[in-house]
Amino acid sequence: MSNQRNIKLCVAYDGTDYSGFQRQANTEQTIQEKLESALSRLTGETTAIYGAGRTDAGVHAQGQVVNFRTSSTIPVERWTLALRAHLPGDIIVHQSQEVSPEFHARYSAVAKTYLYRIWREPWPSIIHRRFTLHYPDLLNEKAIYDTIEVIKGTHDFRAFSGTGTPVKNTVRTISRLELKTSENEWTLWVRADGFLYHMVRNIVGTLLWAGQGRLTPENVADAIVSGDRGALGPTALPMGLCLVNVEY
Amino acid sequence: MSNQRNIKLCVAYDGTDYSGFQRQANTEQTIQEKLESALSRLTGETTAIYGAGRTDAGVHAQGQVVNFRTSSTIPVERWTLALRAHLPGDIIVHQSQEVSPEFHARYSAVAKTYLYRIWREPWPSIIHRRFTLHYPDLLNEKAIYDTIEVIKGTHDFRAFSGTGTPVKNTVRTISRLELKTSENEWTLWVRADGFLYHMVRNIVGTLLWAGQGRLTPENVADAIVSGDRGALGPTALPMGLCLVNVEY
Repeated sequence: MSNQRNIKLCVAYDGTDYSGFQRQANTEQTIQEKLESALSRLTGETTAIYGAGRTDAGVHAQGQVVNFRTSSTIPVERWTLALRAHLPGDIIVHQSQEVSPEFHARYSAVAKTYLYRIWREPWPSIIHRRFTLHYPDLLNEKAIYDTIEVIKGTHDFRAFSGTGTPVKNTVRTISRLELKTSENEWTLWVRADGFLYHMVRNIVGTLLWAGQGRLTPENVADAIVSGDRGALGPTALPMGLCLVNVEY
Repeated sequence: MSNQRNIKLCVAYDGTDYSGFQRQANTEQTIQEKLESALSRLTGETTAIYGAGRTDAGVHAQGQVVNFRTSSTIPVERWTLALRAHLPGDIIVHQSQEVSPEFHARYSAVAKTYLYRIWREPWPSIIHRRFTLHYPDLLNEKAIYDTIEVIKGTHDFRAFSGTGTPVKNTVRTISRLELKTSENEWTLWVRADGFLYHMVRNIVGTLLWAGQGRLTPENVADAIVSGDRGALGPTALPMGLCLVNVEY
């Protein structure tokens, strides 16, 4: 153990054809499984990786971070290219680095940024189809901006949490919640110190309802106080979501 | 027959998972098969479509044009949305129009424009992977621009033709051959009155060889005169190619 190196990788993937990041008993179509298999083939070791964000089925990453321990002597700059031969084309390791033994992709993270892309044209985009929610309906931008102001900051976000693994502390700080609009695409950027299960997708679903006039900023403020998941919008579909980067 | 309407559709598709546009005996994975099946389900008629460009396996379209004759009374503006329910997500009909009986998507076309996208970053792009050739190697831009000047214009392009269906007349006019470069992506735009089999991909393969210094503009000029396919660069992979639009 003492001779083992701790390696950090930056990983991008198109999550469309995967059942999510985390290894599952009933499928091999997970990002974790593909990365661990590739590492095992490369090193001959059984390798367990730790991921910064356990992205759901259909969710993508530009800057997922994982780490693993290895006795392999492969120079750190070679991991990226060496792994490419063992990974499918929709998973790309684009950075590798040796880090201190204490580094843990998930527990050492201080902030993560997600991006949610919404395609606003009347027809879906062939090119952006796998990475955007197609949502051509009329939306009230001002209502969305007003609701963003209510959600931003430090709150108990349990009303935005899906029923996943229970967590004790549901207080998080959203340091950035920014909508950028263009004619064909709207993007929502969310940076926080941590995220509850489905939190970004529930924020997106809530903002879309606000834009439709189905929720007011006051409704959302009330739901944050009451913690009532049912008082907010639905969980937006996964394909628009992408883990952009993780800060340490 | 006299009561039949002639309908023109504009179609976009992600060709990655298809064996090309044209119907084939041994596979249902063609764009034509999917469009004809969708039309038959919608109208109850057996429908044959004509396509402007018979894109190869793996080649995409933003503005493919097809036409077909029908006795259906579905209003012309409804075809796009009605077809969506019967088509896979990677084929999108985004415009429909009733045209004169003489209109033929292929024979009435006066010009077509193709785009070839080349990804220049050290790592493939997860988002653009399906639509770009990943080509990070050093390329001499000036050598490519000089070779473009040789290829542009009216020539006998048989040296750029793959061994497909033989055609009598191999003279074509390329009215636009333009390379646009940015830090992460290079795009090549090709507009001509018609294209020989594999012509765009053979132009791209030749320009990449010119950029590598493996061919000079003089070599290319000589090959155009001699008609020697073997004197030019290889056929570039299909995934970077997209039929952008067809003019009538």
